[in-house]
Amino acid sequence: MKTITIKDIAQKCGVGVSTVSRAINNHPDISEETKTMIMEVIKEHNFIPNNSARNLKRLDTRTIAVLIKDIDNPFFQKMIKVFEEEIQNRKYIFILQRIDSNQDEIEVALELIKEKRLKAIVFLGGNFSHQEGKLQELTVPFVLSTIAMTDNIDKHFYSSVSIDDVNESYKVVDYLCNSGHNKIAILAGYSWDESISKLRIEGYCKALNKHEISINNNLIRYTSKNRDSHTMENGYQLAKELLESKEEFTAIYAISDSMAIGACKAILDCGKSIPEDYSIVGFDGLDITNYYNPSITTIRQPVEDMAKETTNILFDLINKKITNQHKIFGGELIIRQSSGRLED
Amino acid sequence: MKTITIKDIAQKCGVGVSTVSRAINNHPDISEETKTMIMEVIKEHNFIPNNSARNLKRLDTRTIAVLIKDIDNPFFQKMIKVFEEEIQNRKYIFILQRIDSNQDEIEVALELIKEKRLKAIVFLGGNFSHQEGKLQELTVPFVLSTIAMTDNIDKHFYSSVSIDDVNESYKVVDYLCNSGHNKIAILAGYSWDESISKLRIEGYCKALNKHEISINNNLIRYTSKNRDSHTMENGYQLAKELLESKEEFTAIYAISDSMAIGACKAILDCGKSIPEDYSIVGFDGLDITNYYNPSITTIRQPVEDMAKETTNILFDLINKKITNQHKIFGGELIIRQSSGRLED
Repeated sequence: MKTITIKDIAQKCGVGVSTVSRAINNHPDISEETKTMIMEVIKEHNFIPNNSARNLKRLDTRTIAVLIKDIDNPFFQKMIKVFEEEIQNRKYIFILQRIDSNQDEIEVALELIKEKRLKAIVFLGGNFSHQEGKLQELTVPFVLSTIAMTDNIDKHFYSSVSIDDVNESYKVVDYLCNSGHNKIAILAGYSWDESISKLRIEGYCKALNKHEISINNNLIRYTSKNRDSHTMENGYQLAKELLESKEEFTAIYAISDSMAIGACKAILDCGKSIPEDYSIVGFDGLDITNYYNPSITTIRQPVEDMAKETTNILFDLINKKITNQHKIFGGELIIRQSSGRLED
Repeated sequence: MKTITIKDIAQKCGVGVSTVSRAINNHPDISEETKTMIMEVIKEHNFIPNNSARNLKRLDTRTIAVLIKDIDNPFFQKMIKVFEEEIQNRKYIFILQRIDSNQDEIEVALELIKEKRLKAIVFLGGNFSHQEGKLQELTVPFVLSTIAMTDNIDKHFYSSVSIDDVNESYKVVDYLCNSGHNKIAILAGYSWDESISKLRIEGYCKALNKHEISINNNLIRYTSKNRDSHTMENGYQLAKELLESKEEFTAIYAISDSMAIGACKAILDCGKSIPEDYSIVGFDGLDITNYYNPSITTIRQPVEDMAKETTNILFDLINKKITNQHKIFGGELIIRQSSGRLED
C-alpha cells in the first residue's frame, strides 16, 4: 500500500499543497468551506500529517534542549510532555537530554550548543551551584525550571520558574500542627543537600517555631548516602527506621510523594492504621497520591502551568522581548484520607 | 575560578593525560599505586571527569537514538536508564526522541538518520504496522524493543526483544482460574488495538478455554476512544462501569499495572474489599505494585535485562557480528495481597 502524502490530498481536493497545509494548521487565510472539504478528504484517506518529520526537515537548526536531572522522578513526566508540545507548537525541535548526578550540566550544555546548534536551553530539576562566570559562558537563552538556586548569584544572570519551597513546606506542617500534631517527623534528602531538601526542612522548622513546638533533631530523618533520595523504597526504609527507634511521633511529613507512599506502606506493614495511628503527608501532587489507599495529603505543584511559563519566558528571551525573569508559583494543599486530627 | 581540567591533574601528578584517563576509566594497564595517587589528587581538587562532554567532543557522529512511544508510561523509565548507561558506556551519544501517537515512527527515524547522522536506532513501545519495504528504507541497524509486531513481516528484516504477551497473559488468568475464579473481567485497551491489548486478550481467552469457562464478552471491557489507555484513571473508570453494570464477576485482570491500581481504587471507593470481594491482578511489574495497599499481583517483565539485550543486539548489528535476532523473555508471576482463592 502506498502511503498517502500531502500531495495526494492536494490533488484529490483540486487545491495546492500550501492550501492543504493551511487547512491542517488552522491558518486564518483559508475559507471555512475549503477547510471543511479538505479535512473531510484527509479523514476519508486516513492521512496523518507528520509534523515531526516536517519540522525536522525545514528547521534543522531550530533546536531547543531540555536538560534534566533525575529523569526517573515521575514528577517531571507531565512537565516534559508540556515542554515537548509547547516547543513543537512553535515549530522548534525538542531534544531531551539526561544529566547524570555526577555530570556538570553547564559543560554538557556548552557542548550541546556547539554540536547541535541549540537556540535555547531549559534546565530541569536538581540544584545549581555554579559561579556567575560559568553561567555567563552560556551564549543562548536559558531558563532554570524547578531548580533550587544558590542565593549568591545575581538574578540578572538567569531566568527561573519555581515554587517557594520554604513557604509551601511551612503550609503543610502548619496544617499538621493545626490538626493537633506536635510530634511530626520529616523524611528528608541527604544531610549535605543544599537544595530543596534543605529548603523544605527550613519551612518545617519555621512552622514548628510558629506553633512553639521545639525541634527534635531525632525526628529529622536524612537519607543515607547509599540510597536514592526521592524513591518509595527510601521512604519505606526511613519510616521503618523511625518506627523501630524509640522516638514518639504522630505524623510523618515526607518531602516527596514517592517517599510518602513508601512511608505509608511501612506503617501499614507493621499493622498500624493511617490516619488513626499516624498521619502521613507528601509533597508534589503526583496522580498516584489520589489513587493510593488511603489517598495521600500533599502539596500540589502546578507542573503544567510551570512548564508553560518556562517556555513562555524562554521564547520571550529568544525573541528578545524581555530581560531575565523570575516566576514563583504557589502550591495547593490537598487534604485527603492519609491525615487527620490528632484525638487526645 | 578556573575550572580544573584533566591536564591540570596530569601536571600535578607528574604523569601524562592518558595515564589520568586510564586511572579514571579503571583501565588494567595502570598500577594500583599510580591509580590511587591520581585518584587522591582528583578528589583533592574536586575534579569531575565530564564523560558526556568528552563523548560529545570526540565522537560527534556516534549517536544512537531511542524513539519512544507513550513516554508517560512508567514501565519505560527503567529501560531508558539502562539504554542510556549501556550506550554511554560504549562511548556513544544517547538521544531520546518521543514519538506522538499520531506520528509515523519510521518517517521520524529517517529524518533523524539524515539530520543527526545516527549510527543505530532503538524503537521502544507501541506497535508496528509498517510494510517490509518501509522497514528496508532504514539504512542503519535497529531493534524493536517491547513492540508488538504484525506477523506478516519477514523476521529477517528486523531484530526484536519482547515477551510472549499471549503466554504471559495466559499464565495470570490460568492462576486466577486455578484459584477458583470463573467470572473474570479483563480491562483492555482500545477495541481496534492490534497490539499488546489484542495479544493479552488472546491469552485470557486461551486460559478460559483450557478451564472450560465460556467467554462472556460483557466481561471484556475496552477503553473508550476519548481516554488514554494505560492510565490509573482509565482503570478506575472501567472498573467503576463494570461495578455499575449488572455483570457478575469475582476477579479483574487489568492488562497494565497502572490500570490495576485504578481498578483497586474504584473497588475500595465503593466500600468493597480486596481480595475478599474481588481479586485484582495487573501486568508489567511496576515498583508501585509492591507499595500499593494491598500489594498487587502482577506479571513482572524483566525490563532491565530486556533493555540490556536490546543494546547487545544493537551493537552486534553495528559491529556486523550477527544478522537480525529475535529474543523473547519470560515474565514472572508475582502473587501478592490483591488476589486470593475464591471461597464458595
